[in-house]
Amino acid sequence: MLIHISFCLWEYAGKSRRGGDRELVRVQDLTPEKADQLIWLRARVHTSRAKGKQCFLVLRQQQFNVQALVAVGDCASKQMVKFAANITKESIVDVEASVRKVEQKIESCSQQDVELHIERIFVISQAEPRLPLQLEDAVRPDGEGEEEGRATVNQDTKLDNRVIDLRTTTSQAIFRLQSGVCQLFRDTLTHKGFVEIQTPKIISAASEGGANVFTVSYFKTSAYLAQSPQLYKQMCICADFDKVFCVGPVFRAEDSNTHRHLTEFVGLDIEMAFNYHYHEVIDSITDTMVQIFKGLRDNFQTEIQTVNKQFPSEPFKFLEPTLRLEYTEGVAMLREAGVEMGDEDDLSTPNEKLLGRLVKEKYDTDFYVLDKYPLAVRPFYTMPDPNNAKYSNSYDMFMRGEEILSGAQRIHDAQLLTERATHHQIDLEKIKSYVDSFRFGAPPHGGGGIGLERVCMLYLGLHNVRQTSMFPRDPKRLTP
Amino acid sequence: MLIHISFCLWEYAGKSRRGGDRELVRVQDLTPEKADQLIWLRARVHTSRAKGKQCFLVLRQQQFNVQALVAVGDCASKQMVKFAANITKESIVDVEASVRKVEQKIESCSQQDVELHIERIFVISQAEPRLPLQLEDAVRPDGEGEEEGRATVNQDTKLDNRVIDLRTTTSQAIFRLQSGVCQLFRDTLTHKGFVEIQTPKIISAASEGGANVFTVSYFKTSAYLAQSPQLYKQMCICADFDKVFCVGPVFRAEDSNTHRHLTEFVGLDIEMAFNYHYHEVIDSITDTMVQIFKGLRDNFQTEIQTVNKQFPSEPFKFLEPTLRLEYTEGVAMLREAGVEMGDEDDLSTPNEKLLGRLVKEKYDTDFYVLDKYPLAVRPFYTMPDPNNAKYSNSYDMFMRGEEILSGAQRIHDAQLLTERATHHQIDLEKIKSYVDSFRFGAPPHGGGGIGLERVCMLYLGLHNVRQTSMFPRDPKRLTP
Repeated sequence: MLIHISFCLWEYAGKSRRGGDRELVRVQDLTPEKADQLIWLRARVHTSRAKGKQCFLVLRQQQFNVQALVAVGDCASKQMVKFAANITKESIVDVEASVRKVEQKIESCSQQDVELHIERIFVISQAEPRLPLQLEDAVRPDGEGEEEGRATVNQDTKLDNRVIDLRTTTSQAIFRLQSGVCQLFRDTLTHKGFVEIQTPKIISAASEGGANVFTVSYFKTSAYLAQSPQLYKQMCICADFDKVFCVGPVFRAEDSNTHRHLTEFVGLDIEMAFNYHYHEVIDSITDTMVQIFKGLRDNFQTEIQTVNKQFPSEPFKFLEPTLRLEYTEGVAMLREAGVEMGDEDDLSTPNEKLLGRLVKEKYDTDFYVLDKYPLAVRPFYTMPDPNNAKYSNSYDMFMRGEEILSGAQRIHDAQLLTERATHHQIDLEKIKSYVDSFRFGAPPHGGGGIGLERVCMLYLGLHNVRQTSMFPRDPKRLTP
Repeated sequence: MLIHISFCLWEYAGKSRRGGDRELVRVQDLTPEKADQLIWLRARVHTSRAKGKQCFLVLRQQQFNVQALVAVGDCASKQMVKFAANITKESIVDVEASVRKVEQKIESCSQQDVELHIERIFVISQAEPRLPLQLEDAVRPDGEGEEEGRATVNQDTKLDNRVIDLRTTTSQAIFRLQSGVCQLFRDTLTHKGFVEIQTPKIISAASEGGANVFTVSYFKTSAYLAQSPQLYKQMCICADFDKVFCVGPVFRAEDSNTHRHLTEFVGLDIEMAFNYHYHEVIDSITDTMVQIFKGLRDNFQTEIQTVNKQFPSEPFKFLEPTLRLEYTEGVAMLREAGVEMGDEDDLSTPNEKLLGRLVKEKYDTDFYVLDKYPLAVRPFYTMPDPNNAKYSNSYDMFMRGEEILSGAQRIHDAQLLTERATHHQIDLEKIKSYVDSFRFGAPPHGGGGIGLERVCMLYLGLHNVRQTSMFPRDPKRLTP
C-alpha cells in the first residue's frame, strides 16, 4: 500500500469523505481491554527498525508510546513493509491496526502490555530525513551512556531546535506542569476574591529609575517596556479593586548571563489592600504558593517523575503554615555559619543559597519567607518599619535557596512617598503620576511579583531557567 | 473625636494592637439581619452633606454603598459632626456604627433597608479636596440632566484620571466582567484538554511582513514586539502540544485612531491540531465563545445591568450551535441589500456592520462565523480551499457586526508554504525559521486570535474599545 505522501496535505485541506467517520484512539488508551480490536491511530513515528520481512515502529503521542509491527503476511505486502521502513522518524502517520496483548512487557514503551499489528498506514506529514537532534539524546541524563559514546545534546542546540526539543518527554512534562502552575495560581486567587487585571506593557516612563529598561520606538516618540506591573497594580488598588492579580510578560534589559536571569519572563503578580497588618499580604501569598505546591504534588506526579528521570532531584518540601524568618534571624544564622556581614548589608546570591541550605537543615523546608529587610536595600516606595527605622515592611520568598518573589508593603501616602523619593535622590518630576495616584484616598496595601520560570525551575530542582521558558530570551538569544 | 489624619499611616505601617481584633464588615452584607448590631466598617466617603447638628455620609465599597449618619447626641459631639463634615470625598475611613433599619427605602444606595449611626470615625487615608472628576458625573448617561446643566465627563478626562474613573460602578462592572471573560476562556479550554503556553513578546524578526510593527532596542541590536503569538502557537502544535491557548498582550504599530483599534491589546489565542476537517477548529472556538456568553449571562447579570444603566443596549443574543455562513452567502445578502461588491473583494467595515444587521434580522443572533474567505484577501500561510482555488479555509467571527476573531487552517507543509509565500512576493529569507518549523512532521492545524477588549465592548454593547481597556494605548495615548 504505497501512498504518495503529498496527497495528505490536500486530504486534510478539505472535507475528507474518507476519514470523516473514523474514530481515532489515543495511545494512552491502548490497554489490554482493547485487545483484538481494530483501531485507527494518528501518531508520530518515534523509531523505526526494519528486520527481514518485518518492520518495528514505535508510535508516539506526547509522552505516550506504543510498539507497532508491519509484517509480511495476511494484511501486509512486501511493498508495504518496505514503505513503512522508509517512513522518516518524526513523521506523522495514520494507522489502522489490531491491538494485541503481549506476553512479555515492552519495557521501552509507556504502553507495556499491548502492541499494534498494522494493516494500513498513511503518511500525514513527512519529516525531513536529517533531524537536527535526536529525541533520545535530548532526554539522556548527563553522564549516562558516556562510555558507550552516546551523545547528549547541549542546551543551545536544544533551544535552537526548540520545535523538536519540546517534543521530548522532559519538555512535555515541564510545560504541562508550568500550565498547571498558572492555573493553580489563578484559581487560588480567584477563590480568595482577587480580580484579574490586564496591565499595559508599553509605558511612557521608565518605572523604577530608568536602569535596565528596553526602549521602544512609538510613532514619533519613544516609550519603554514595563519592568513590572507594579504601578498599575497599585493604581487598581487605589481604584477600589481591593485584591488583584495579573499574569504577563515583564522585561528587564539586564546584561546578565546567568542560570536564572532572562530579559523577558512571565510575572505572576499580586497586590492587595489589607486591613491591619501587612502580614495579611504575606499570608495570602504564602498560602497561594502552598496551594500551588499541593496542586503540583497531587496532580502532576507523572510530570514530576518524568523530569526527575533526566534531572534527578529531591522532592520539594514545604511547611504549613509557611516558615517566616526575620532578616536579622537570617543574618544570625549566616554569621553562625561563618559569614561576615553587616546588619544592613543585602544578601549576596551565594549567601542566599547558603541560607537556604541552613534553613533546610534546621526546618526541613524548601520554601520560606525572609521578612523585614533593611530599608536601605529596598526601593524608595517600600514602607519603613514603624518600630525600627533601619528596617522595612518588606520580604523576599525563596525556593531551594533562590529568590522567587520580592514584595513589600507600599507607601500609600503621597507625602511620605515624596520624602522617601527625595531621600533616594529620585527626580520627582519623573514619578509625578505615580505619586499622584495616592492623592485621592489610598488604602494600606502590599504585594509582590513571582517569576513563573523560576518557580517551575526550582520546584523541579532544575538548574537553568531556560529549561522552563519555552522560548527563552536573554542578552544573547532572541530566537526562535 | 478629632483624629489627626497622619497617624493612620503609621498605624497601618506596623502591627496595630488597636485594630488587630476588629472584624470589618462588608457594605454588601449590611442587611436588616444586622439591625442594632455595632459593627466596624472601612469604606470611602462617597458623598457628605452636613445639615445643622447632623452629617449624612454615603459610604462606598466598590459598587455597594450605604447611608451613614453622624448626629449630635449620645454618641457624637458637635466637634465630631464638624470633623465628619470636613472629611473630603473619596477619603477612606474606618467607622464604628450601629446598624439601623429604615422605614423608607433609601433609593439612592445599594443597601436600601438600613443606615448606619456612626459612633466613632477614623480617617485612614485623606483625599485631596479637589477631585479631577466627580464620580456621579462620570457615570451619568449621555444627555441625561443636560437641561439642569449637569456635567458628564469626556473620555480623555476619564482616561487621564483613570485611578478615579475606575472607581465608578460602571468601570468596576466592566473590569470584573472582563476578568470573568478571561477565566471562562481558560476554564473552557482547559476542560477541553488545551494546554496554556507562554509566548515571547520580543522577537527577532517582524512576523507578518514587517508593517505595523514596533521596534525595540535590544542591547547592541534591535528587535520587534510580537504582533501575534501565531508563529509560537504553531510551533507548539508542531511540538506535539496538540491544543494550546495563550492570553497575553499583542502589539500593533498601526496609526489608526478609531473606536476599535488599540496599539496594545490582550489577545486570547487558540491553536489546535485537528483530525479530519478544519471545522473541528471552528467548532472548538465557537463553543468556547458560547461558554463565555453563557457564563457572563448567568454569573455577571449585576455587572451587565450596571453598565446598561449608563450605556443602554440590547441583551447579547447567540445561537447554539453557532451560525456559520459562507462568505459567498454573506456577499449575496449584502448584494440583495443593494451593496455592489465583487466575489473576491474583502468586506469593508461598513459592510461588516451592515451584514451584522442583516444576519441579526434574519437569524436573530449577535454572534456568527463567516467561513471560506477569498484566498486573495488572506495572509500567505492560509490554507487554500481544495475544492475552489479562489477561496480558503479561513474564517472571521463577529459580535454585533464587528470582527472579534480572525482565523484559519494554516498551511502545515513547508513546500506549499514556500509556494504561497513566493506568490505573495514575500522574502523567503525572512520567514525561513517559520517555514523550517514544518519540516519535521506537522499535523494539520488551525486557530485564531480573539481581542479581549473587543469581546467585552461588543458583549456589553459599548461603543469604544478604550472603555474596556484599563489603561488603553493608542497612537496618541501612552499614559497613565
